Amino acid sequence: MREILMLIMELLGTVAFAVSGTLVAACCGLDLFGVLTVGTITAVGGGVIRDLIIGQIPPAIFSKPETLVLVLVTSLVVFIVAFINSKKIKDLRLKIERINIFFDALGLAAFSVTGVEVTCAAGYSDNAVLAVVLGVITGVGGGVLRDVLVNEKPYILVKHIYAVASLIGAVVYYFVGIYFGNELIGTIISVLLTITIRMLAAKFRWNLPKVM
Amino acid sequence: MREILMLIMELLGTVAFAVSGTLVAACCGLDLFGVLTVGTITAVGGGVIRDLIIGQIPPAIFSKPETLVLVLVTSLVVFIVAFINSKKIKDLRLKIERINIFFDALGLAAFSVTGVEVTCAAGYSDNAVLAVVLGVITGVGGGVLRDVLVNEKPYILVKHIYAVASLIGAVVYYFVGIYFGNELIGTIISVLLTITIRMLAAKFRWNLPKVM
Amino acid sequence: MREILMLIMELLGTVAFAVSGTLVAACCGLDLFGVLTVGTITAVGGGVIRDLIIGQIPPAIFSKPETLVLVLVTSLVVFIVAFINSKKIKDLRLKIERINIFFDALGLAAFSVTGVEVTCAAGYSDNAVLAVVLGVITGVGGGVLRDVLVNEKPYILVKHIYAVASLIGAVVYYFVGIYFGNELIGTIISVLLTITIRMLAAKFRWNLPKVM
Repeated sequence: MREILMLIMELLGTVAFAVSGTLVAACCGLDLFGVLTVGTITAVGGGVIRDLIIGQIPPAIFSKPETLVLVLVTSLVVFIVAFINSKKIKDLRLKIERINIFFDALGLAAFSVTGVEVTCAAGYSDNAVLAVVLGVITGVGGGVLRDVLVNEKPYILVKHIYAVASLIGAVVYYFVGIYFGNELIGTIISVLLTITIRMLAAKFRWNLPKVM
Repeated sequence: MREILMLIMELLGTVAFAVSGTLVAACCGLDLFGVLTVGTITAVGGGVIRDLIIGQIPPAIFSKPETLVLVLVTSLVVFIVAFINSKKIKDLRLKIERINIFFDALGLAAFSVTGVEVTCAAGYSDNAVLAVVLGVITGVGGGVLRDVLVNEKPYILVKHIYAVASLIGAVVYYFVGIYFGNELIGTIISVLLTITIRMLAAKFRWNLPKVM
Repeated sequence: MREILMLIMELLGTVAFAVSGTLVAACCGLDLFGVLTVGTITAVGGGVIRDLIIGQIPPAIFSKPETLVLVLVTSLVVFIVAFINSKKIKDLRLKIERINIFFDALGLAAFSVTGVEVTCAAGYSDNAVLAVVLGVITGVGGGVLRDVLVNEKPYILVKHIYAVASLIGAVVYYFVGIYFGNELIGTIISVLLTITIRMLAAKFRWNLPKVM
């Protein structure tokens, strides 16, 4: 039950991350190969960094060709749609991003939980700091790599409550799901909380304070 | 025979990558240390990422001081030449790049084959995705790191058929050299194909489609 | 004695690195979370890269929550001070950086020695290249990550004698401290040399040659 729910959320999230990566890359002037690469790295990059840090060699994604195919197909479809509509690409990007924001939040929530879970399953369940940090890295790492590659200031470090939603989700899942051992309840609370915070922040344009 | 050929191609490619890294860094306003660093990372960075992903600890390059010396000397020579000709640096860069493009293609071809080979030798020969991805990362990873460090949009993601040539070479070598076990034939076909595609793309300015 | 000295220098250096990361991030328009993240990565990022390269999994910092707390508190305090003084932030940044430069040099010196030491303690004491390179990466890696994340050309590759001071410190410590086995003398000479070179370079605006 929980496994199926997580799988569905992860798949939707992976697709949403691939969509966001593809759009950003296509609008930054990257070519087809660059767009597919950045789309893929956005979708799977957070998990790869996590796996390198916990010593999961090679990273799990390399044993999941079906996920890679899903990401590449998603990225290719978005590229083609953007290519056909390249004259009104800005409008299109806004429209897609408006639809994508919910699935992106779903992915952020699912990835943050997975990050904590995989870290703990690798034998680090007594290291709360590692588990939570890798939860957040799994959630937002792909987006940071995307922005570094297209040479933009990382979005998640600049605007709206994004990484913080992931952080809260990771902390909640670590305590309820790992520390108190209730995976199902922990997942539900964590995911709902992450999605709610992220969607409210996007809707009401909540931002953290900035110096300038 | 094949070993000697590969060694020569890898050495020429390493030098070519060091030259390109040095030129880009010198033209971006980096100082001598920065130029040597970026030159070195361009030449060896792809292999280091590959080694981290397959768990080759520490990365192989750290046991090859003679390669590092070759890279540093190359980078230093290019820096000095650029420094002496700093007033006509743009002309010089164009000239060097025109000569360098063939050796760079040689390096791209050799590194893509080596990447597949090292990955398979590390026990992952049944994982085609991993082998091919790490072939491409070995081929183009150094160039991506170079562009991220000098704060430019990665060249290989923007212009001409570069990474795609590496990808085709890696796929061909995986199938002919690893899957069908014919290393020599696989290497020859893969290398010729990669170099041909890359040189034609550079000459005729083939580009992949872009949205904008 | 040496342990206590190193610990004090590392703590001061960690704080100084966190201060520099926080200031750069705050002045680049990052939000509170972004600032804390970049501050933390600046302070601990070099050590994390080193640990991944020598196979110290997970990186040592994840077992030192007290260091992370120190870094986060430092970063938060600097953010608050910057936030309150946001109208005269440029003046403030200059003032803080002038004070910070000595502690930063202390951190650079201590981290370079630690990097060599940790690498050799992990069983690589016969690999001078690896030890020295990881000494420099430990010293300057956090600053490079900081600049890549905020989308600036890495400072240490552009201006003043910074990485070179770290390199000289690492080489000296490797020979005196590891090769000749005199840790205390090696540490003292290495640290004094690194700090002296760095401070003189900053004061007299020594720069390495550049092409443009």
